[in-house]
Order: sequence, then C-alpha cells, then structure tokens
Amino acid sequence: MYQHGGDIYNHKIKLDFSSNVNLLGTPPGVIEAACEGVTLSYRYPDTQCIKLREAISTAEQIPSEQIICGNGAADIIFSCVLSKKPQKALIAIPTFHEYEQALSMMDCEISYYQTKEETNFTLQEDFLEVITEKVDIIFLCNPNNPTGNLISRKLMEKILFQCEKFDILLVVDECFMDFVQNPEDYTMKGLCNKSNHLFILKAFTKLYAMPGLRLGYGICNDKELIHRMKQASQPWNVSIPAQMAGIAALKEKDYVKRSLELLEVERSYLINELTDLEFKIYESMANYIFFKAKKGLYEKCLEKGILIRDCSNYQGLEEGYYRIVIKTQVENKQLIEVLKEIINVKINYDTGNDVKCREKSDRSWTLPNI
Amino acid sequence: MYQHGGDIYNHKIKLDFSSNVNLLGTPPGVIEAACEGVTLSYRYPDTQCIKLREAISTAEQIPSEQIICGNGAADIIFSCVLSKKPQKALIAIPTFHEYEQALSMMDCEISYYQTKEETNFTLQEDFLEVITEKVDIIFLCNPNNPTGNLISRKLMEKILFQCEKFDILLVVDECFMDFVQNPEDYTMKGLCNKSNHLFILKAFTKLYAMPGLRLGYGICNDKELIHRMKQASQPWNVSIPAQMAGIAALKEKDYVKRSLELLEVERSYLINELTDLEFKIYESMANYIFFKAKKGLYEKCLEKGILIRDCSNYQGLEEGYYRIVIKTQVENKQLIEVLKEIINVKINYDTGNDVKCREKSDRSWTLPNI
Repeated sequence: MYQHGGDIYNHKIKLDFSSNVNLLGTPPGVIEAACEGVTLSYRYPDTQCIKLREAISTAEQIPSEQIICGNGAADIIFSCVLSKKPQKALIAIPTFHEYEQALSMMDCEISYYQTKEETNFTLQEDFLEVITEKVDIIFLCNPNNPTGNLISRKLMEKILFQCEKFDILLVVDECFMDFVQNPEDYTMKGLCNKSNHLFILKAFTKLYAMPGLRLGYGICNDKELIHRMKQASQPWNVSIPAQMAGIAALKEKDYVKRSLELLEVERSYLINELTDLEFKIYESMANYIFFKAKKGLYEKCLEKGILIRDCSNYQGLEEGYYRIVIKTQVENKQLIEVLKEIINVKINYDTGNDVKCREKSDRSWTLPNI
Repeated sequence: MYQHGGDIYNHKIKLDFSSNVNLLGTPPGVIEAACEGVTLSYRYPDTQCIKLREAISTAEQIPSEQIICGNGAADIIFSCVLSKKPQKALIAIPTFHEYEQALSMMDCEISYYQTKEETNFTLQEDFLEVITEKVDIIFLCNPNNPTGNLISRKLMEKILFQCEKFDILLVVDECFMDFVQNPEDYTMKGLCNKSNHLFILKAFTKLYAMPGLRLGYGICNDKELIHRMKQASQPWNVSIPAQMAGIAALKEKDYVKRSLELLEVERSYLINELTDLEFKIYESMANYIFFKAKKGLYEKCLEKGILIRDCSNYQGLEEGYYRIVIKTQVENKQLIEVLKEIINVKINYDTGNDVKCREKSDRSWTLPNI
C-alpha cells in the first residue's frame, strides 16, 4: 500500500511535519459549524451542496453551476477520471500520487514527464513537445506537491492552448495555490469561463487545516463533464459536517490573512536554518519545504518523535528527498533542534542566547548521498 | 438527476418520512464522538480505519481484514463495481438505485429481474434461471429497499451456489438487516468465510441514524477484491468524525435494543392504521413500509409539510407506490392524521377520545389507480 504523509496512526510521534495543513490549525468557527453539522446528521446531506456551492461561488467569483464538491479533492480526482475514462494521460513527476492511482484504476496508459533536479524540478517549455493528440488528460499540480514550485502563467497558457487544439482535458490542481504570494499571477481559475478543456481542483483541507473532515471542489465550465462526474459518484459524497464546515471556513478571512503572514515569517526562518544546516532546499512557494539530505533522515526524525515526509516513494524521486510542512515558531524550532541533534551539532547553551557553536563531528551526514 | 428520499433541501417540510433512519435519532454518544472527531480533523483520517475495523470485527464476529470501510455504503457500491469492472450485471427490481448508477457508469450491461406485484415483489425461485455464466455480478438487497421484503436463506444459498459455479460476485446489501426480527435467519454474513463470491454490504446510516456523517462497510473473504477496492478509491475516504462515530455507535447496544422494540410497536400501529385507510400494504420487515395508493399522494403530503418517498422513479415501479419510514408514536400519529385529512375522513373530535367517525366522501382516493 502506498504510504502518504500524515500517517500518525502507525507511528508514535510528538510532532507531525508530514501533512501540509495550515500552521494555525482548524479555525474555531469551522469546528463549531462542523459540530453543528454533526447534530444534524440524522438527515441525509444535500446531494447538490447548494449552500456550499453558493458560498464557494461568492468566494471564488465563479458561477455556482461551474462548481462540483467532493469528499476531499482526492474524491474529485477519482470522479473526474472515472467520468472522462481517458485512454492516455500525461503527468509531470514527481507529483501527488492520486492522479496516477485514479488513472491506473481505469487502466489508462500514463506518460511521465520527468522534471529535472538541475532545474529544481520545475516544468520546462519542452513539456509542450510531449502534448500530442494521443493524450486525453493532463494533470499538473500548481504549486507542485511535493516540490513546492510553480508553473508560470505563460507556460500554463501555452499548455492550455495545446489542450484546446488536441481536445485534451487539462486538470490543474491548485490545492496549495492559496498559500502562494500573489496567487492571481499563477491561478488559471479566470480562464475556466473561456475554456471547456480546463478543470481546476481545489481543497479546504490545506488552507483551513481540516483534512479529517474531507472537503474539496472542482471548477469547470464543461457542464456535461460536471454532470457525468455527478453520475460517477454517489449522490451523498459530501457529509453534512463537511458542507457546514466549508461554508464557515469561507468566512475566515482574518484567519487566512494571519496565517499567510505567519507563514512567510516561518518559511524564512526554516529556509535559513535548513540552509545553515547544509540541506539542499528547492523552491518553496507553498506551505511546505522540499529538500534533499542524506538517506535515513526520515527514520532518524521518527526516532525523535517527529514525522517528516519521506518522498522516496514519489514516482520520479529517489531516496534522500524529504518534505516538511511549515508549522508555528515553537514547533519549527523544535524541529530544527532535533535536526541539529541528528546531524550531531553540539549546541552551546552557555552563552544564554541564540548564538550556537558547532562541532562539525558528523557534518557529512547532511550532504546528499549522490 | 435521480431523486432520492431525504431531500429536505428542496422542500419546505415539517416531517420527513422519506429517509429510512432509526426512529430514535442519532444516539448522543455517537454525536459526542463525532464532535470529538471534528476537533481532531486537523489530522488526516486513518487510511486503514484500523480502530474502526477492529470495532466492527468484534461486533460482527468477522476478521478485521475481511472488512472494508467507506464513505457510506454507496461509496462501497461504487468502489466494488469499479474494481470488479463487470461486463454484465443482474439486478432484481425494484431496488436501491445506486447499484444501477454505479454499473452504468462502468458501461456495464444490466439484466433486470422484475419481481411481481402479485407475489408482493418478492424474489422467486425462477431467479435462479436467469443466473447464467454470462453474468459477472449480482446485486440483491435483503431486506429489499423500497419493498421491505426478505429473501429466504434457502433461496439465497441456492443463488450463492450458482454464483460459485459461474464465478459471479454476489453482492448482498444487508443495510437494513439489523432492523429485521431474527436477522440470523436471513443474513449471509456467516457464509463470507466460506465463499470468495460473496460480498456483504452494511451501513451505520440507518441503524444509528447518521446518514449525514457517511459510514458504511463491506464484508468479503476475497483479499484480492478488498485490495483492488482500496486502490479504486482515495485513501482518506472515511472522515475522522465518521470513524469515531462508528466506533461509538457499536457500543450503543441499549439504544439498538430499545429502538427495535419501539419499531415493532410502531410498525403494528402504522400497518393497522394504513390498512384501515385501505392503502395496499406490502410485506414490511425493515424500518419502513411500502404501500400502494392513488397517484398524487406524494404531492398531497408535501402540501401538508410531510415528505414521503414517491417510489415511481424506481426501475420496475410505476406511479402510485410509496414508502414511509416508521418514526416515533407522535410523528406517526401526525402522519396518520394528515393521511386521513387527505383522503377526506372527517374526524369526530366531539367524543373527546380516539374514536373516529368517518365520512367516506372520497374513499375512492385511497384505492390504487390500476
């Protein structure tokens, strides 16, 4: 069975750095709404998610009939593949595993475009060359999971143009887009109205730290596809607590603002510290950091009660790649302390302040084992 | 879009008699556990549902590796069909719509065995004749939804024998079995250990009145099928509130006992009253009653704020068939009063007691329009 991040059930851990959720945790208003939803769960959920879609429509400035809700974004991936029944798919790797799982389940042939370490695993213009008329569906994650890098709007538009030409459905997973600074420079949302070949995937999971509740949605102008997706799924796929949590979440504008501000501060802190520890850091535009270190870091962190994401089981990656979510200051400091212990940096507390004195007894450990 | 029961979102209603959930409502212990689950929803759900499957294993006396959990029983239907990819299916109608929806989505050819009104829509021995080697999957609902009738254990065993012979997967939907008196005389659960061709479908939805939370499960001895079903579904399909609600629900033995006792009393009450009103009642072994009346009863009830299940959109039924859930005494009495009003029975309140005096001005209304 493929192992994802967030599996705190098979490990004894103190801190989970493996699941990419908002550092502020679930907003109290969302918890309250979901609990109210629990008390109403003697009813069946609204199969049309009418109120929830209206709320998303207002928040996203997208007509409500172009929105389809699901039991997490992963549910949307499956119903999209299931209703599209593609013969051939194109995926840029490394990326989120569920595209591949959904496609494989439909016996779809998958072509992989391997992004390169030397270009920081970013999508290059030569991706356009592999988009042929044989392809039925393309999945792109922007910003990408686990690498955290972005695809430029210009390249994305060229890709969409190719998709229009060859009648290919372009699924752009923007589940982490809300963590990006200036998302309007990258999101393809605005083009949904103009193209029937574009499908945007979004989630409440990450921004509102509610993966346990399961709520995601898709945006698409193709009414026929939306209809087929509804048919390819049970009518009650979104629970009442999730529907009510979603409506409440969209009101949490202060929470989002605050968390994004904190995220910038903590991202800088972590990148500085990790760079200082001589880990190789890649571009990080979302709420997580992707880096390279010597093999075995996952196990060593686990021994200290910290779960990080070992990325070695991502298609297109090898051992030695890791992903950590950006958490609050206290937690990030704990992580850094543990990482320092692991790479055997002795911390000199005698100074009574932040100044640390290193003994480079086992510095080789931080360096990637290439 | 196919219309199910429980759609309280598009109607202004006072009482919902259209969704078949336990008359006692969600147990407080289940609500409490689900709310605790909400507070833990900053985590991803356990993809393996380990604790929940252990609890079901104990309750059902079935090894935990033979259990697969889903986002409601409907989710299990879809992942079963998706992993089996049947070419030809056999369904006895009228029955629950989701088997057909899941099969159609996989472009599966469906053969329908039409149960007859003259035999109270029960499955007959001639069903065995339509089970041929061309069939890949059979769906049977026991007790059946919406008719409420049971398939005898003897006939079910003969069906399974045929399925073994022709390598057919027999899916028995026992979602309402826990409402039956002496379920041990009917359930096929005990045979799961002995056959790789049997799949039992069960739900928490009905017995614990928690359809809004989404939780169902399947029991099957075929490890390969269970594995494929896991692959045919996102890993996090069961939310944390649902997993925790399920574990709590299985402790609610008193609640179940009490609700089943009440159910018997209220079933008798409703059957007597409905018979008295000259509706045609069919066998009713679950927590709902299936009956025939003149067309338009659904709309007339709706005018009075009561939602009943209009069964005319069930494959194999025509207009004039209805289903009502058995609710508590107060609610059932309200329904009967409304039905009496509708069929224009004048109630004589002058006596100051329950004795009612009828004016049969429009009695013809109750009679089926055949």
